[in-house]
Amino acid sequence: MVQLRRQILLCGSILNQFQINIKRNSSSLQIRDRKAVQSERSFKYADLTVRLAGPDQLQPKPDVSALTFGKYFTDHMLKIFYYEALGGWQIPEITPFENLVLHPASKVLHYAIELFEGLKAYRGIDGKIRIFRPELNMERMNNSAMRTGLPTFIGEELIKCCCRLISIDQEWVPHSTASSLYVRPTFIGIDPALGVASSKSALLYVIASPVGSYFKKTNENVGISLLADPRYTRAWPGGCGNYKMGSNYGPTIYVQKEATEKGLQQVLWLYGEDNEVTEVGTMNIFMFFINDDGEKELITPPLTSGLILPGVTRNSILALATEWNEFKVSERKFCMDEVCRLLSENRLLEMFGAGTACTVNPISYIEYAGRPLHIPTMKHSNPIYKILLKHLSDIQYGVISDHPWAIPIE
Amino acid sequence: MVQLRRQILLCGSILNQFQINIKRNSSSLQIRDRKAVQSERSFKYADLTVRLAGPDQLQPKPDVSALTFGKYFTDHMLKIFYYEALGGWQIPEITPFENLVLHPASKVLHYAIELFEGLKAYRGIDGKIRIFRPELNMERMNNSAMRTGLPTFIGEELIKCCCRLISIDQEWVPHSTASSLYVRPTFIGIDPALGVASSKSALLYVIASPVGSYFKKTNENVGISLLADPRYTRAWPGGCGNYKMGSNYGPTIYVQKEATEKGLQQVLWLYGEDNEVTEVGTMNIFMFFINDDGEKELITPPLTSGLILPGVTRNSILALATEWNEFKVSERKFCMDEVCRLLSENRLLEMFGAGTACTVNPISYIEYAGRPLHIPTMKHSNPIYKILLKHLSDIQYGVISDHPWAIPIE
Repeated sequence: MVQLRRQILLCGSILNQFQINIKRNSSSLQIRDRKAVQSERSFKYADLTVRLAGPDQLQPKPDVSALTFGKYFTDHMLKIFYYEALGGWQIPEITPFENLVLHPASKVLHYAIELFEGLKAYRGIDGKIRIFRPELNMERMNNSAMRTGLPTFIGEELIKCCCRLISIDQEWVPHSTASSLYVRPTFIGIDPALGVASSKSALLYVIASPVGSYFKKTNENVGISLLADPRYTRAWPGGCGNYKMGSNYGPTIYVQKEATEKGLQQVLWLYGEDNEVTEVGTMNIFMFFINDDGEKELITPPLTSGLILPGVTRNSILALATEWNEFKVSERKFCMDEVCRLLSENRLLEMFGAGTACTVNPISYIEYAGRPLHIPTMKHSNPIYKILLKHLSDIQYGVISDHPWAIPIE
Repeated sequence: MVQLRRQILLCGSILNQFQINIKRNSSSLQIRDRKAVQSERSFKYADLTVRLAGPDQLQPKPDVSALTFGKYFTDHMLKIFYYEALGGWQIPEITPFENLVLHPASKVLHYAIELFEGLKAYRGIDGKIRIFRPELNMERMNNSAMRTGLPTFIGEELIKCCCRLISIDQEWVPHSTASSLYVRPTFIGIDPALGVASSKSALLYVIASPVGSYFKKTNENVGISLLADPRYTRAWPGGCGNYKMGSNYGPTIYVQKEATEKGLQQVLWLYGEDNEVTEVGTMNIFMFFINDDGEKELITPPLTSGLILPGVTRNSILALATEWNEFKVSERKFCMDEVCRLLSENRLLEMFGAGTACTVNPISYIEYAGRPLHIPTMKHSNPIYKILLKHLSDIQYGVISDHPWAIPIE
């Protein structure tokens, strides 16, 4: 307890540097409407109150080597209520990790008035804890809030609150460069009334979970396997595929089950009559291949269609690969026909998924409309996906020091 | 309390008649897979336990004339937990109405693992309480459960449990033929772990709310107004538009807000490049018009596309109109072009919405891509929608006695 309290006092001054860091990181996902962030209506980090868990409420930390995804949670959480009738955003509070008490008519439970984010805190090789480009998560979260009819806020204020939470629970950030602390901001509509309508009461809360690999794998030289079934569609123009709303996930479970029953790990979502490749639901997708001009090219589907989640890892990979300038980098539509053709002509080099939860994951197999496609991602001596994964990891774990994308907490 | 306990004892024997009634009502919505209902794995009404609210827990009943939709709740609720690790379905229990205690990582709060149903209990002119075709809600609920990766159950067992709940809270069924008790079965995934996956823990619960009209109206001679904006899509082939899942509703709030800002009440959802008319989100849609052969015809979009919720009121209107055989009745696709053309040729007679929550609601105005369409539904002396509404209402409130669709509770 004494140690915890000391940490809290310590982290206050460190947080002051965020404003500067965030301004430096001005790259942007998709901002539909800058009006979304109504500064005068946000909660403020300065108002944060902290109620620490008592010694008997502290949980044992799991063995880092046995970590999977999202099973264990830290000792504290952040809560920020919004009540229109009380003037809007309330004071942010960090409390012991505890169950939520919700009215059975809460809109989140009936109409999926819910959205979330995912970012990670990494314990670097220098012992410092860093978070990765959190301002992109905040932009996306505000965009999702607007689309869900929930109130917006100043992203920087939530980043500071999250950092305080991470700082308090810092011993939960694994001492390992194969693991991290996954931070999950969640935002739900809690009006206790039936009827499809905007939320006048809402709860933004943040929980954190020490995590290992998202996928169960036998070893790191095995890629993941995907089911591409044209009968199912994840997102469509005029819908919400480009927002991180709960409603994008519920409908995927059934198809995911179908994949699992076939011994495959994830679903590759296609769209339209030409079976356009969109994303993996938990990851964006990339393809590395030799194009018609004989050049090496890295492509990923564009955000313009509204079908694709604007991933932070996706954005970072595009930025890194463009900066390296060693091969062509494109955001453009591609279809399963092209994948099959490149594969048959031995021009498909790699496919991989990218996301915060899943990091960079090589794809080795796709079952496409009953047809087995063996993707040769793992067969290269120095694959691009590994170089990208290592570079991102080096930024996140402080091997590359002082990178503007990695913001140290303390 | 004594009175309540007596009612509970009374209703047990009455419930035995359900099995017979339900078998008589064999009409069906869309059953994709009969295997869904795995009888050996369902909870059983016979196991139901009841814990009544104490006198100090009983809430005052609202004034029936001031009722809107979904704001007040009765004194009790039904809960049935499912835990795979404990063998599946647990014992159903009726308890005092109370808040739910949920782990912050519960899948319902992140991935919209949730679905619901809506049915109503009516206090008839003979004092008897009736529910309307509940077996159709149960079929749809099991279909939704399957699509959401949640366990199925025997619908009849849930109907019996719901009837017991209604019986216990029977004084909450309004003494008015303009009001009813809306019963809301809800089913959520509650696994306390992050990661998009099937639910191994779930909660099926039922709450009930005395309700008046869904829409605020100045008087009964005013129809509702709709926004038809082709930029937004509710559902699409390969998606979940034909299931009553929470994920169909979250994405509609933003568009609903746009409608409200224009002074319109609901959204008319279109699909595809030809602006196919689908549904209103809280209602199915019907159009009554003079067809190319000069006949009167009632149409509604077909269920085959997977874009339309198979409504109980929709099903009942089709059945009644077909039985009456006074005009042609069709389930077929129609587009906004046809609506505009019929309107300009004075052949569009009526449009109306139909749903359990909203009953039968005349449509008087549609703003379609910025163009005002004045629908003449309210201008006829004896409109079809009114005849249908009255007939359904007469069945529900026991004016037409012993109709097989209306199942008396006691």
